[in-house]
Amino acid sequence: MKLGFIGLGNMGAAMARNLLHAGHEMAVYNRTPAKADALVREGARLAKSPAEACRDADAVHTMLADDTALEHVALGADGILGSLASTSVHISHSTISTALARRLAQEHGAKGQGFLSAPVFGRPEAAEAKRLLVVAGGESDLIQRCRPLFEAIGRETFVAGPQPWQANAVKVCGNFMIATMLETFGEAFATLRKSNVTPSLFLDVMNALFGSPVYANYGRAIVENRFEPAGFALRLGLKDVRLALAAAEEATAPMPIASLLRDHFLDALAHGQGDLDWSSVARVAARNAGL
Amino acid sequence: MKLGFIGLGNMGAAMARNLLHAGHEMAVYNRTPAKADALVREGARLAKSPAEACRDADAVHTMLADDTALEHVALGADGILGSLASTSVHISHSTISTALARRLAQEHGAKGQGFLSAPVFGRPEAAEAKRLLVVAGGESDLIQRCRPLFEAIGRETFVAGPQPWQANAVKVCGNFMIATMLETFGEAFATLRKSNVTPSLFLDVMNALFGSPVYANYGRAIVENRFEPAGFALRLGLKDVRLALAAAEEATAPMPIASLLRDHFLDALAHGQGDLDWSSVARVAARNAGL
Amino acid sequence: MKLGFIGLGNMGAAMARNLLHAGHEMAVYNRTPAKADALVREGARLAKSPAEACRDADAVHTMLADDTALEHVALGADGILGSLASTSVHISHSTISTALARRLAQEHGAKGQGFLSAPVFGRPEAAEAKRLLVVAGGESDLIQRCRPLFEAIGRETFVAGPQPWQANAVKVCGNFMIATMLETFGEAFATLRKSNVTPSLFLDVMNALFGSPVYANYGRAIVENRFEPAGFALRLGLKDVRLALAAAEEATAPMPIASLLRDHFLDALAHGQGDLDWSSVARVAARNAGL
Amino acid sequence: MKLGFIGLGNMGAAMARNLLHAGHEMAVYNRTPAKADALVREGARLAKSPAEACRDADAVHTMLADDTALEHVALGADGILGSLASTSVHISHSTISTALARRLAQEHGAKGQGFLSAPVFGRPEAAEAKRLLVVAGGESDLIQRCRPLFEAIGRETFVAGPQPWQANAVKVCGNFMIATMLETFGEAFATLRKSNVTPSLFLDVMNALFGSPVYANYGRAIVENRFEPAGFALRLGLKDVRLALAAAEEATAPMPIASLLRDHFLDALAHGQGDLDWSSVARVAARNAGL
Repeated sequence: MKLGFIGLGNMGAAMARNLLHAGHEMAVYNRTPAKADALVREGARLAKSPAEACRDADAVHTMLADDTALEHVALGADGILGSLASTSVHISHSTISTALARRLAQEHGAKGQGFLSAPVFGRPEAAEAKRLLVVAGGESDLIQRCRPLFEAIGRETFVAGPQPWQANAVKVCGNFMIATMLETFGEAFATLRKSNVTPSLFLDVMNALFGSPVYANYGRAIVENRFEPAGFALRLGLKDVRLALAAAEEATAPMPIASLLRDHFLDALAHGQGDLDWSSVARVAARNAGL
Repeated sequence: MKLGFIGLGNMGAAMARNLLHAGHEMAVYNRTPAKADALVREGARLAKSPAEACRDADAVHTMLADDTALEHVALGADGILGSLASTSVHISHSTISTALARRLAQEHGAKGQGFLSAPVFGRPEAAEAKRLLVVAGGESDLIQRCRPLFEAIGRETFVAGPQPWQANAVKVCGNFMIATMLETFGEAFATLRKSNVTPSLFLDVMNALFGSPVYANYGRAIVENRFEPAGFALRLGLKDVRLALAAAEEATAPMPIASLLRDHFLDALAHGQGDLDWSSVARVAARNAGL
Repeated sequence: MKLGFIGLGNMGAAMARNLLHAGHEMAVYNRTPAKADALVREGARLAKSPAEACRDADAVHTMLADDTALEHVALGADGILGSLASTSVHISHSTISTALARRLAQEHGAKGQGFLSAPVFGRPEAAEAKRLLVVAGGESDLIQRCRPLFEAIGRETFVAGPQPWQANAVKVCGNFMIATMLETFGEAFATLRKSNVTPSLFLDVMNALFGSPVYANYGRAIVENRFEPAGFALRLGLKDVRLALAAAEEATAPMPIASLLRDHFLDALAHGQGDLDWSSVARVAARNAGL
Repeated sequence: MKLGFIGLGNMGAAMARNLLHAGHEMAVYNRTPAKADALVREGARLAKSPAEACRDADAVHTMLADDTALEHVALGADGILGSLASTSVHISHSTISTALARRLAQEHGAKGQGFLSAPVFGRPEAAEAKRLLVVAGGESDLIQRCRPLFEAIGRETFVAGPQPWQANAVKVCGNFMIATMLETFGEAFATLRKSNVTPSLFLDVMNALFGSPVYANYGRAIVENRFEPAGFALRLGLKDVRLALAAAEEATAPMPIASLLRDHFLDALAHGQGDLDWSSVARVAARNAGL
């Protein structure tokens, strides 16, 4: 297939590379073009605008930081909406709001273009290793057609439902689950440190109990107070909690733990932790306990 | 070794059996004596009182429902404190308050008796399969001496610290981690159900993400709305959240998620869920979303 | 002075009338023109668009339901921004976001037009009786010039600061204080009803304790379960809590009680209380207690 | 009437004085006897034990710091229970748990002694000025008989119900209402200070809005950061929040704001604010906002 790929950060570059190496023809675009160099050396074509990345493409992938960035690339001048062929599909991998996913579905639909939301779970290492989890939302036929693309970047593909935004709801709820785990470690460690129990002992018990690499990795970072460089910056974590609350509000469903997370992420931000890894939210509970 | 074992509920009976089959001599006591029948057939001696279970014992194990039950057995008339030899040790496996653990350590100490807290993680099936996690607190020598006993009932032993109550702090913080996971499933499912996303789809994604049998098993129960028979009754879950809050208060450490859990467990209790499995706390979030 | 007044709901109509009766010349505009009839009979001129209400006006007042309505009237086609003379001032009385207030300040400033935020506290009866509290934000000179207008509608005028949005921050924080009081009544009544204490007894004590008409009036409504007709609809209450959280987030300040209120207002909305008075949020605590 | 009065702190001494000056004969007891000197000079008789304060008394009043102190005085050696005549009544003014009130009702009842709970609202100045609010719980006849005593210390008497503990439920719920108000000021001030709005401006608006001396006085203290000497120490405030949560738990009613207050009072305690006035809880919100 002929592909476009827009957004070559740590995640996007790794995903694009895997698609390229799976044998697809590819045009790549990034606001800072230097990030495309390596991919161009490996055979990708450099596009000078989102529009150019769409030219002749069967599918154009986007992997961007937030709603604003995707709105710009998709709906702005020289954007995807105005350039994509009507038989082609825009596959959005970004963690965006369910509201924007709905809007994009509608606008692409009005032009006869396809639109899928396919956010992913996994850090950059997982992206490089084709180990992402892909959650796809949209028309069944379209998902079927794009399945080989998902298989080129991930270890498993899940179908959230016939509406693209449903995949985004799953993604932000999943991130909510992880963020809560970070906070629970923070609270438990605060109590245990003030009880003179070694945090790593508690982590060992939790690893034996949950048997989860997610607990093991994040727990280790918190125990070692190791929050730089950020695998996922706390200010992006706050954004994701906000997206979960927005999805919940659209569904008229209270999520009180998400509300509490939002407050603690704000507290962390007010204490200068915006660029640390989001697992540093555990410091808030420590601080509140006077540690 | 010569052992006493007091408290033969689902957990206690399985633990006692494994100790018995490991070759120890054993006297067993239970308020309702019928529960001792099977163990007596397998070679245990029936004791008619806690005191009798302590006679000649090198160690007496207790596995009881709560503080009140253990206080009765340990400190009451015909209780452990008045009967145990001064070279012997009381090993408490119950999930009790850190305050009671401190009191027992002091009272046993005053009599020259040993005292260890060794609460366990795991459901009855794990107890039967010698797969419990044992968290031991108390004097290092004493723990060393009792290690074979822990190995007879569990797959791994962790040492929380030199004070018995520290093991109880670890135990209640661990249960807090599990209870929070139940609540997060409840909140995420509420939002997703109202977004027409199938709960089992989300569970599949979480299983792929966390890779944890704890998530898998509890998540499945919640998805299937299967809360009877209770593996662990919600009213006991509330008790454990209360114990976590009490341990945190002693440490002067706020645990806001534990506070929120307490409120939701109370809500569940007010809606008649006290005897359902504690994973049914997920219903609270559903109810609050109007489901 | 020559005035325009846009937005003739219960609040706006009463405020416009008091300005008219204070001797000002006035053009009035409302999306549904019939609501202007009474004012026209009393001497106001009917404007057919926001732009027409601005013609020759020294000041144009707006009193609208939310951000969207004010954006439309101020920034839309035939809106205030394009029509107001550069020596004139737009006085916004609506409870809007601090973000929109900032944007309006900027856009009006770019055109050389004045802009003040002057949200008000008080129900329609207070508006009719010239008993509103006016909180004004903006340039000191401009506030001074408009002070007679504020005095025509309220019993006291407060100056929040030199930025219009600061007045909106004060307004949403004030509404947060009231909303919290509603919730506390709900929680206390739930506990006391389940303790067989008569709610009205507790209300009597609180009235003697706080000596506040706000407690007395809302407390009475909750005790009597009297939520219709809504003095202030719960869905608008939710909007205001959201605005408080947004103002707090801009300031990077957690407001955990506001988060909790948001969850309870959502719960109420999910249970069909959107059109009841916002004091009906007290029902959530009752429901959660199984009442 | 012949009275005993036990507990001569700031509150108790003022209440005893008003009873004495109303013409009653009185024996007074305090653990630190020096605190009784002034009353003795004014005509009271010094008792050397709680028992002695009960001798010949028609009613014995207690005003003590907490459950432990009252348990000691009422149920300990030389305590009220063993000394009071069976036709006499124990009137407990302390802010104690509903559980202890129930226990005292039962134990006094078993001895044929009367028992009333009559906790009071008001600070020491109000006690001196006979301006307390008295909330009485217990048998109607008994309350009727003791009404003159309540009228000698307060400006208004309320009857909570036929069970003494109901008065304690009202008292702790009332304190919960005040504590919440403190916290809301804290949260609003944090957001407004970070928005460069002067706290005293907001307080002025809230005073005009609520018209409540309770808001005015506490708000002023918070604005002026004036928390010493403590009118009511934060560690006692935490105790009262705990009592509200305990009363709510007995009623199986969640009180999520009370849970949040508990967490913030604990946070304050962990930051060394235990002996400051409880209004200093407002500092927690400021700290969490990075102020």
